[in-house]
Amino acid sequence: MKAYVIQGGFGLEHVVEVNREIPSPKRGEVLIRLKAVSLNSRDIGVIEGFYNPHLNTPLIPVSDGVGEVVALGEDATKFQLGERVSGIFTQSWKMGEATQENWGSTLGSPLDGMLAEYAVLPEEGLVRVPDYLTDAEAATLPCAGVTAWHAIVEAGSIKAGNTVVVQGTGGVSLFALQFAKLQGAKVIVTSSSDEKLERAKALGADFGINYKKNTQWDEAVLAYTDGIGADHIVDLGGSETLNRSLSALKVGGQISIVGLLSGSSVEGLDLIAAIIRKARLQGINVGSRAMFEHMNVALQHHRLHPVVDRVFPFSQAVEALRHLATGSYFGKICITF
Amino acid sequence: MKAYVIQGGFGLEHVVEVNREIPSPKRGEVLIRLKAVSLNSRDIGVIEGFYNPHLNTPLIPVSDGVGEVVALGEDATKFQLGERVSGIFTQSWKMGEATQENWGSTLGSPLDGMLAEYAVLPEEGLVRVPDYLTDAEAATLPCAGVTAWHAIVEAGSIKAGNTVVVQGTGGVSLFALQFAKLQGAKVIVTSSSDEKLERAKALGADFGINYKKNTQWDEAVLAYTDGIGADHIVDLGGSETLNRSLSALKVGGQISIVGLLSGSSVEGLDLIAAIIRKARLQGINVGSRAMFEHMNVALQHHRLHPVVDRVFPFSQAVEALRHLATGSYFGKICITF
Amino acid sequence: MKAYVIQGGFGLEHVVEVNREIPSPKRGEVLIRLKAVSLNSRDIGVIEGFYNPHLNTPLIPVSDGVGEVVALGEDATKFQLGERVSGIFTQSWKMGEATQENWGSTLGSPLDGMLAEYAVLPEEGLVRVPDYLTDAEAATLPCAGVTAWHAIVEAGSIKAGNTVVVQGTGGVSLFALQFAKLQGAKVIVTSSSDEKLERAKALGADFGINYKKNTQWDEAVLAYTDGIGADHIVDLGGSETLNRSLSALKVGGQISIVGLLSGSSVEGLDLIAAIIRKARLQGINVGSRAMFEHMNVALQHHRLHPVVDRVFPFSQAVEALRHLATGSYFGKICITF
Amino acid sequence: MKAYVIQGGFGLEHVVEVNREIPSPKRGEVLIRLKAVSLNSRDIGVIEGFYNPHLNTPLIPVSDGVGEVVALGEDATKFQLGERVSGIFTQSWKMGEATQENWGSTLGSPLDGMLAEYAVLPEEGLVRVPDYLTDAEAATLPCAGVTAWHAIVEAGSIKAGNTVVVQGTGGVSLFALQFAKLQGAKVIVTSSSDEKLERAKALGADFGINYKKNTQWDEAVLAYTDGIGADHIVDLGGSETLNRSLSALKVGGQISIVGLLSGSSVEGLDLIAAIIRKARLQGINVGSRAMFEHMNVALQHHRLHPVVDRVFPFSQAVEALRHLATGSYFGKICITF
Repeated sequence: MKAYVIQGGFGLEHVVEVNREIPSPKRGEVLIRLKAVSLNSRDIGVIEGFYNPHLNTPLIPVSDGVGEVVALGEDATKFQLGERVSGIFTQSWKMGEATQENWGSTLGSPLDGMLAEYAVLPEEGLVRVPDYLTDAEAATLPCAGVTAWHAIVEAGSIKAGNTVVVQGTGGVSLFALQFAKLQGAKVIVTSSSDEKLERAKALGADFGINYKKNTQWDEAVLAYTDGIGADHIVDLGGSETLNRSLSALKVGGQISIVGLLSGSSVEGLDLIAAIIRKARLQGINVGSRAMFEHMNVALQHHRLHPVVDRVFPFSQAVEALRHLATGSYFGKICITF
Repeated sequence: MKAYVIQGGFGLEHVVEVNREIPSPKRGEVLIRLKAVSLNSRDIGVIEGFYNPHLNTPLIPVSDGVGEVVALGEDATKFQLGERVSGIFTQSWKMGEATQENWGSTLGSPLDGMLAEYAVLPEEGLVRVPDYLTDAEAATLPCAGVTAWHAIVEAGSIKAGNTVVVQGTGGVSLFALQFAKLQGAKVIVTSSSDEKLERAKALGADFGINYKKNTQWDEAVLAYTDGIGADHIVDLGGSETLNRSLSALKVGGQISIVGLLSGSSVEGLDLIAAIIRKARLQGINVGSRAMFEHMNVALQHHRLHPVVDRVFPFSQAVEALRHLATGSYFGKICITF
Repeated sequence: MKAYVIQGGFGLEHVVEVNREIPSPKRGEVLIRLKAVSLNSRDIGVIEGFYNPHLNTPLIPVSDGVGEVVALGEDATKFQLGERVSGIFTQSWKMGEATQENWGSTLGSPLDGMLAEYAVLPEEGLVRVPDYLTDAEAATLPCAGVTAWHAIVEAGSIKAGNTVVVQGTGGVSLFALQFAKLQGAKVIVTSSSDEKLERAKALGADFGINYKKNTQWDEAVLAYTDGIGADHIVDLGGSETLNRSLSALKVGGQISIVGLLSGSSVEGLDLIAAIIRKARLQGINVGSRAMFEHMNVALQHHRLHPVVDRVFPFSQAVEALRHLATGSYFGKICITF
Repeated sequence: MKAYVIQGGFGLEHVVEVNREIPSPKRGEVLIRLKAVSLNSRDIGVIEGFYNPHLNTPLIPVSDGVGEVVALGEDATKFQLGERVSGIFTQSWKMGEATQENWGSTLGSPLDGMLAEYAVLPEEGLVRVPDYLTDAEAATLPCAGVTAWHAIVEAGSIKAGNTVVVQGTGGVSLFALQFAKLQGAKVIVTSSSDEKLERAKALGADFGINYKKNTQWDEAVLAYTDGIGADHIVDLGGSETLNRSLSALKVGGQISIVGLLSGSSVEGLDLIAAIIRKARLQGINVGSRAMFEHMNVALQHHRLHPVVDRVFPFSQAVEALRHLATGSYFGKICITF
């Protein structure tokens, strides 16, 4: 089979195509033939070596993929040949609270990921995906979809009428927008592009703030909410956004710390604001199989379509990663086989 | 002013029209001129003496009403003359958990209610109602609306994709249907009438069960949910429905005990079912001012319209109560002034 | 090995000793040599056929036991030979919420239980038990201990200063008493015996009510709590106690429905009381492996000793079950090997 | 009456004694004669102008005090003459969630505080304090006691067997230690002094870390917890401690952000650690009247004594504040009248 691996160093130039034998599923395992994968910022972080400088290579990168079951190991009884399944981002996190051990079982680092024609996973590490989705759409769920579901629905417990701020228009952001709308919220989206704000409104956003034109977007949130602030803010920027998120928050509100797009180290975090806002800052690290399954029930019922920015063929996987690294997209970047 | 009072005994024949002086607001109080009231089963219970056999009479019945602020007592600064406000069902329950003392402050028993041309209430016991609602619609909120909001949104924490069963098509039931839809749920409605089921579907219900034709409606719920059962059931029947609610419930699910339409005493409650289902049965007793205000934010945002079955003029208040007592309606029965 | 099995019909007379081959652990399984078992009312229910009239026999009864690891199947790496472990009551319920499938994996029905010299279980279905406990004490944990922990700590979230009512002085009740004290609560115990109430006080109970002398024990709870009622009631009686539990409950309080000692069908459950008390009735069905492990951490830290009523030798297992059936005990009945 | 006021500028040198008329309680208000006050770091922040540079002066500083009811305004019926009561830190926060308006009603800034022989407060802004406490002990409750109760019991939901880290040995820290022990937790205390660690152990601490000798106290927490980390950390240091708190936290754990002793602005907050730990950072801003009342029930039941470092006479109030500013104390600094 063809596969891409990171080898010989970090950086996109060290992502190379190789030929490998198709792996065989052992007891309790399933062989899937990949149909589509989707890319996440984390994949770039892994490839660039920021995520784990001690990564064991060669490693097949990219955490998220969907494929068809083509062979079953001994005692693997959960799926039928031909079913379409996705790998769970954190393979060993089934339900309830995560533990530290779970972090050793994430796909695309330290475990081999999905940027290959075939993959073998334990059946316990797979979920069926809703039928109505295209392959590319289905491939967007494991990391970006589950992260947004965890933030908005499971940790956020968003209620009808709540105001939710979503930063940016990447994959997690647009899922968060869509899930917040499912739960009846008012949604504010921030972006550096008026055109993307218009597209976000077409997806249901109630209000858009161009943070390039209006750098004090926290003031705009306060103005929109009659000075009260937002009930929930999905913070994707990290270092450059967190203080403004605190400033834009309602007393008793919650910030989901999801991403690190502008850096992982916050200079000058304002603890007085955190106390005065009675803020809850909640780190979100993707989610469990149970969350994935609950999300799928909601997706199926609402026939909600994830937003796919662009689809590349497998042969252009590196170009797809390069497109992701530019940071200029609306929704998810996918690769089909 | 004209008012109806319960006097000389219990029963609809003891609800009589009287003339009283318009009351004056004292310090911190507000005088409102009623524009509409809505009726609840509880109002019949009060009038018939089931609710409190030791009721102090004469008493102005009916808990729910909306009116215009026409005079302000000393230090009453929260509202302006001309604003449209509703009384809070449990006057002293502002926020957080209720206490036993709160139950002494409910309108329409033991406190005077709204079936009068004017009423005086503390400003703390009033909330503004959304502008887009008609008077009759606005009058439906204090008991039926807040009860359903409390059950579905506050105690129920309904998530997108959850399955919710709503029994019947009275006021609380249709609000519960509407709020469950706002939170992204699948909703099953039960009714004795196919025509009402069709109307419920027009309001968003996903599935209807005629419990006259299909007395084992719990089996129908299980079939609809692939044997899993419902996440949440709003139980309005009481004595005749609770065991079937337990049988139709998902493991770990929740039943909101809201009404007593078929009686308040359950014979043969099946505790084994409660344990095997890990059921949570939650008594719901209307709700707080904070819940009312949160509901109003959601209503305003979604411009959701409460369902009004029929509107009577004030002069036909007793006919309106009689219509309620028949039990044959779809949504709320209102009276306008 | 020697084992007791239910065969040829229901009832204690059909519990007979047999000789079987020592089972071999398969992949992922562990063989344990039993050191002690403890008995629960449920075991009698299984033997008498009340619990499941369609039970597949012969079946080894009794859910709870502790033993030493004496052989490891292939790939079983979690435990060392010689370690002391207990079986988890619901073998497949690892963490998070239970599902209906979990109920098919309970020990002592439908799966073989612990009343045998050896047992084989998946390593995932075992937990280490705290070192400081005797074998008999350790054997009391899987059903009674975890049930009480689930009710008081996980579902109850008991806070310091809360008032908790515990009915009776059986195994679950005394664990509930002990755990409620660990969480800083005031504990009221009910019993038919003044002598048992004295022993409960020696374990930390703050107040005792003899419900034989004082059948209106709910009034005694209200009097003790200045008319406010209890925050949490662990209801073990079932049919005869539930209405009084509702009457003794604080507004907003919680009742854990744990047992059915006086019957499983409640006649005349008072729904008005449930609504007026804003009662939460929560069915408790033992608990997950995660709950068992959390409980063990707390036990170890506090070196708390479960209460053992009486210890029988394995040869007198039927006498031990008969002693349980009398209902006259204080704490747990155990059998050692 | 004698009173201290901040006037003519910020700083301890602008805290001056003045003579004022004893105020009269208006409708719904109560006059209390102060018996003791306690000091909090916040009082220094107010006096130094860090807390609110636009403070309206003259202002009576110090938020916490206990006194005897000596006069009742019209309609004030909640208390009797002679009862001992405390002011609630946030006068208008009765129960449930706080709102932004509540912050305008805190004692000692912007409202007049307790450093005076008499004070008038609305009866709704007072609570009875437990009888068994000395005046000085009772004076420690409103800010430090309620803050710790909020962090540990209400927001923290500490369970028996949890590991809690408490930073330092000031007032909030020792209350947090005591409340965590009431809830059955293991408690680790950090301090710069071995002698204070010994005193903390005498109060129930299970483990002490001298962070002067062992600056990597997070490593010591991880070692003590077998690498798992703490379930809950009460962070009082702020800028210098938060990253180590994240490092010492269990996956899924919670940090209560309570204090700012080393500064309010965190440089280099590690968001990756927050995500990897699935950390919840919860800003705690004292608490509501309901929390105060719940805490009092627990205190009364356990007859727990707050730790008083030193008591000054009213005439030496400025010396007392100076002692507080040194930062070298164990528990609370009080002033008696």
